[in-house]
Amino acid sequence: MKAIVVDPQAGGCHLDAAYPTPVPPPGEARVRTLLAGICNTDLEILRGYARFEGVLGHEFVGIVHRAEDPALVGQRVVGEINAYCGVCPTCRAGNETHCPQRTTLGIHDRNDVLAEFFCLPVQNLRPIPDDMPDQVAVFTEPLAAACEILDQVHIRPTERVVVLGDGKLGLLIAQVLALTGCDLTVVGRHEEKLDILARRGIATQIGTHGFATKADLVVECTGQAQGFQTARELVRPRGTLVLKSTYHGLVQADLSRLVVDEVRVVGSRCGPFPAALRLLAQGLVDVQPLIEAEYPLDAALAALEHAGRKGALKVLVRP
Amino acid sequence: MKAIVVDPQAGGCHLDAAYPTPVPPPGEARVRTLLAGICNTDLEILRGYARFEGVLGHEFVGIVHRAEDPALVGQRVVGEINAYCGVCPTCRAGNETHCPQRTTLGIHDRNDVLAEFFCLPVQNLRPIPDDMPDQVAVFTEPLAAACEILDQVHIRPTERVVVLGDGKLGLLIAQVLALTGCDLTVVGRHEEKLDILARRGIATQIGTHGFATKADLVVECTGQAQGFQTARELVRPRGTLVLKSTYHGLVQADLSRLVVDEVRVVGSRCGPFPAALRLLAQGLVDVQPLIEAEYPLDAALAALEHAGRKGALKVLVRP
Repeated sequence: MKAIVVDPQAGGCHLDAAYPTPVPPPGEARVRTLLAGICNTDLEILRGYARFEGVLGHEFVGIVHRAEDPALVGQRVVGEINAYCGVCPTCRAGNETHCPQRTTLGIHDRNDVLAEFFCLPVQNLRPIPDDMPDQVAVFTEPLAAACEILDQVHIRPTERVVVLGDGKLGLLIAQVLALTGCDLTVVGRHEEKLDILARRGIATQIGTHGFATKADLVVECTGQAQGFQTARELVRPRGTLVLKSTYHGLVQADLSRLVVDEVRVVGSRCGPFPAALRLLAQGLVDVQPLIEAEYPLDAALAALEHAGRKGALKVLVRP
Repeated sequence: MKAIVVDPQAGGCHLDAAYPTPVPPPGEARVRTLLAGICNTDLEILRGYARFEGVLGHEFVGIVHRAEDPALVGQRVVGEINAYCGVCPTCRAGNETHCPQRTTLGIHDRNDVLAEFFCLPVQNLRPIPDDMPDQVAVFTEPLAAACEILDQVHIRPTERVVVLGDGKLGLLIAQVLALTGCDLTVVGRHEEKLDILARRGIATQIGTHGFATKADLVVECTGQAQGFQTARELVRPRGTLVLKSTYHGLVQADLSRLVVDEVRVVGSRCGPFPAALRLLAQGLVDVQPLIEAEYPLDAALAALEHAGRKGALKVLVRP
């Protein structure tokens, strides 16, 4: 089968036209990729983040192609990217996405979705409604990551919230946080991207100039190391700073300032798929304007190049 | 009067025998210092932290010497170190210790307690029981800072907690956290200091070797920049990391790891005096073994040198 394979030594990746078609081990299903999304984490992996080797990608809609349970075959699904053991203390405490034995789709020890086929544990698959287009369902994984913030932090409708970053994830986070009724401003760098939110009535601005009052909560999703310092300056004493960006490298941080201002920093990663699917099914989040381009798998290298351009929105790949 | 004055240019400080005796402005009282404690923040200030100029010190027991209300004069008091406006939105939200107009005793724009006299707003003074010795009451401020952790974070009696650091603050934090019934281990470097806790039945160990399970909550109070990384490695995914150390300088931090493990970082500073006084009055925290030496004000420079020695416990100064 065709697959996009990361070259950990050389940096970058290549299209392998004769990659072995995976055979599902017990408990797993083979899924045929219908549509895959390229995320900033994929691009960071090509820069060396997480030292991943194998097939790239983790956002997908697919059709179950082979499974022990014949009822599953032919179902259209999305899937949680963390494959967990289910029996260790971490899993039993409800923290399956942090299972120390986990493998993570396209990120950690698990081949993935920028290919014609891939395997995933059956327990990770989530069937999707027949009337949900592929182009909507493919956003389930990043939208779940946006919902994770609300699972970790209580955002009150009376609070002042800033989303720092107008990338793909930022535009999803902003739409999810706006559902709380909070006093939200999205700070970005790209007028055309902020306009997607402005059309929904969400307040936006270019840059952080002119902020009169500090925010109760700031979400840092710039994808840049410098974002931390900027986010830090926008949050009030005893406020909350949610970190969403992952990137390759360290940050010079003034941790004493966090102590003096008693700021709460919350790292936030993968989130609840069922909540994301409900929001999509109800049409409460609009993902269509976030799609910038769609490429066939044969042109996946061009798709990755496109996704890596400054300001690019979601680039999809259809095998 | 005599006062220990910081030299911001030269680094260090000197004893000024003819420093002007302060005259209390409206709303403030003049306090005669009975006993003062030297804290690591004082030592960091001498290294340039917070760029403070003026009289050093912020831990004290004193007697009200001059006040508008004659009933106050002669009362033995401790005092909250943050002088706040009480009317701004931050104060009205109950965050007086974060008032943007605040001055802070011996730290920020306010002369302080390593002197024969100093001034403090009357609203900051807390009378203490007659039977509480000066050597106990002088620990109210750092003990309140330890109590602040319990005001910010819910520590369950079923949780595994690590206190990293066996300095003066660490020994107080450990005693306060042990009151929750949690499964506590204190990690330090000094056997004689850890023995103070071991005698109270608190588990201690030198270094972090041999930790089988990660902690639900880790308190970083080493006072060292390197403490962050060590604390980070001891906390479980989705666990809480409380930062207590303030020091001069930046830290190289792997913030992506916080995101991947969804760790919650909580900066923690000054705390509730009434709670600290209750714990002291009930004898639930033992501060006497933490006292290493007592010097007269004339020998305050020697006291500061002593307090700065590796492994030194609380050094007190009596004007």
